[in-house]
Amino acid sequence: MATPTSLRRTFSGRRVLITGGLGFIGSNLARALVALGARVTIVDSLIPEYGGNRRNLAGIAAKVRVHRTDVREHAQLARLIRRQDFLFNLAGQTSHMDSMTDPETDLEINCRAQLALLEACRLHNPTVRIVFASTRQIYGRPDYVPVDERHPIRPVDVNGINKAAGEGFHMLYSRVHGIRATALRLTNTIGPRMRVKDARQTFVGVWIRRLLEDEPLEIWGGEQRRDFTFVDDAVEAFLLAAARPEAVGEIFNLGGPPPVTLLRLAELLVEINGGGSFVVREFPDDRKKIDIGDYYADDAKIRKMLGWKARTDLKTALKRTVEFYRRELRYYV
Amino acid sequence: MATPTSLRRTFSGRRVLITGGLGFIGSNLARALVALGARVTIVDSLIPEYGGNRRNLAGIAAKVRVHRTDVREHAQLARLIRRQDFLFNLAGQTSHMDSMTDPETDLEINCRAQLALLEACRLHNPTVRIVFASTRQIYGRPDYVPVDERHPIRPVDVNGINKAAGEGFHMLYSRVHGIRATALRLTNTIGPRMRVKDARQTFVGVWIRRLLEDEPLEIWGGEQRRDFTFVDDAVEAFLLAAARPEAVGEIFNLGGPPPVTLLRLAELLVEINGGGSFVVREFPDDRKKIDIGDYYADDAKIRKMLGWKARTDLKTALKRTVEFYRRELRYYV
Repeated sequence: MATPTSLRRTFSGRRVLITGGLGFIGSNLARALVALGARVTIVDSLIPEYGGNRRNLAGIAAKVRVHRTDVREHAQLARLIRRQDFLFNLAGQTSHMDSMTDPETDLEINCRAQLALLEACRLHNPTVRIVFASTRQIYGRPDYVPVDERHPIRPVDVNGINKAAGEGFHMLYSRVHGIRATALRLTNTIGPRMRVKDARQTFVGVWIRRLLEDEPLEIWGGEQRRDFTFVDDAVEAFLLAAARPEAVGEIFNLGGPPPVTLLRLAELLVEINGGGSFVVREFPDDRKKIDIGDYYADDAKIRKMLGWKARTDLKTALKRTVEFYRRELRYYV
Repeated sequence: MATPTSLRRTFSGRRVLITGGLGFIGSNLARALVALGARVTIVDSLIPEYGGNRRNLAGIAAKVRVHRTDVREHAQLARLIRRQDFLFNLAGQTSHMDSMTDPETDLEINCRAQLALLEACRLHNPTVRIVFASTRQIYGRPDYVPVDERHPIRPVDVNGINKAAGEGFHMLYSRVHGIRATALRLTNTIGPRMRVKDARQTFVGVWIRRLLEDEPLEIWGGEQRRDFTFVDDAVEAFLLAAARPEAVGEIFNLGGPPPVTLLRLAELLVEINGGGSFVVREFPDDRKKIDIGDYYADDAKIRKMLGWKARTDLKTALKRTVEFYRRELRYYV
């Protein structure tokens, strides 16, 4: 990722809080911020089913402060948020299936804790600059592709409903209370440090793991088209969104290289790995009800307003990810 | 209100639970259901700032069971929901301003308790027929009027975000878990038993109270056009929505007679009262940020699908309401 001088000027010496900072995107963001000279504090619950992993800080552990705190512990939030210049708010429950089997936990984390965090900002640090990790999941099954930010919000699972509320609170606090927040609606983000244990973040992680363990990939459906953002590009979007005043109160889609079908993605992975196989399966019934079909983002808004773009093509993104897990898989399974 | 034979057939002898049943619309619904021969149980928290009032059951108190329970007491919900044939889910925090000053309470009631109630239905009574009281507030500031059900959901206050989530959970449980739910998006509902203590339900209540107490009405703005549903018509919509199988999984706007400006409404009220005065004020700043301008509903969908219509013209609606409070004001202030 490029780290232009302007980003260094913005973040060097500044206090930055990252919720979910031991997770996939959060830890990559922490690494970038440490490189930019920021004073990074991480909050993470390290819930086993979520993305947090101490290994994600390998090489920078001495340079960041880590609080093992759950964002549901509302009373802790005030203390943590005070005196921070930036808040990257990435703590979340990400599994669509878990949100259906345990909807109340999803609500606590993705909805209620978000409101509590914003209240803590309003009361204790109203000038903090916030970037919130939202998700394409809130669009539901697209009316059209590519999906732009004006597409109706029509979530198809509990996770989508709660994330929509969480994003809504951020935008409302920006508009009404002057809390300077930006929301990024992420699509499938891939790269080093993604969860590979299971499909709770994205199915790509578990595909890579199976390839490396010499097991066949399982593809559900296969013809759905999806887009993928490489994590370094996503990190750059978070940094730009926090740095640019014109991003305050705005919502941006993140996209990536041109979308591909899941079948094509599997072929690419097998090719990069130099071998492997996959089986195509029918969607299980419980999954079919909340699947969204084709999705890919129109990210013209962030490209135009913030000059962001996805620098990493899909093959490179997958290659770097596979290479990372060739070395690191044992810390992630 | 008409009570056609078909409604009697649907509800006579059936078990009906009404959350928020001591409130304005809930108690009018309870009265109609008692008249139809239903076995009515009411759940109400009787929180002083909300709409519940024992006086609302005058004349039918012996014919209904009342549980003073807060829908936030999740453990109570299972017991209450068991063996019910119908659930009219009207418990809610309705004040937009309160939702901004105490957002967490709004979330607990309008979002979290709704999910808990639906979980209780899924686990303990998956065949119950549910009608949920949603609100036009979730549309936010309209892109166009009249507003139909396809209008984007873009709430402008905490109340709207939480109500949108609450409605979303109902529709999701209908689609995914087969819980037979219908949502009605209410506009300003007016009539006997509305809250007149303050503007926490609708400003019309407090206007009527001021008229009867010989105080000038206060109009904020005045040129905004709004629509009003008479409560008997709203009650009929709830009954039809519960009775008709084709309403399952559907969302319907409720409207009313042609919309009027707030100024015109004030003039009508003064005329009906045979005297009174009003002052027009600028919006206070905190209110301006969450006001939505003109709103009136396109209710063609419910008229077409369920044969509902607003039978009561605005003047009649206001007259009946004023007459009611001439007799009853002392129980409502």
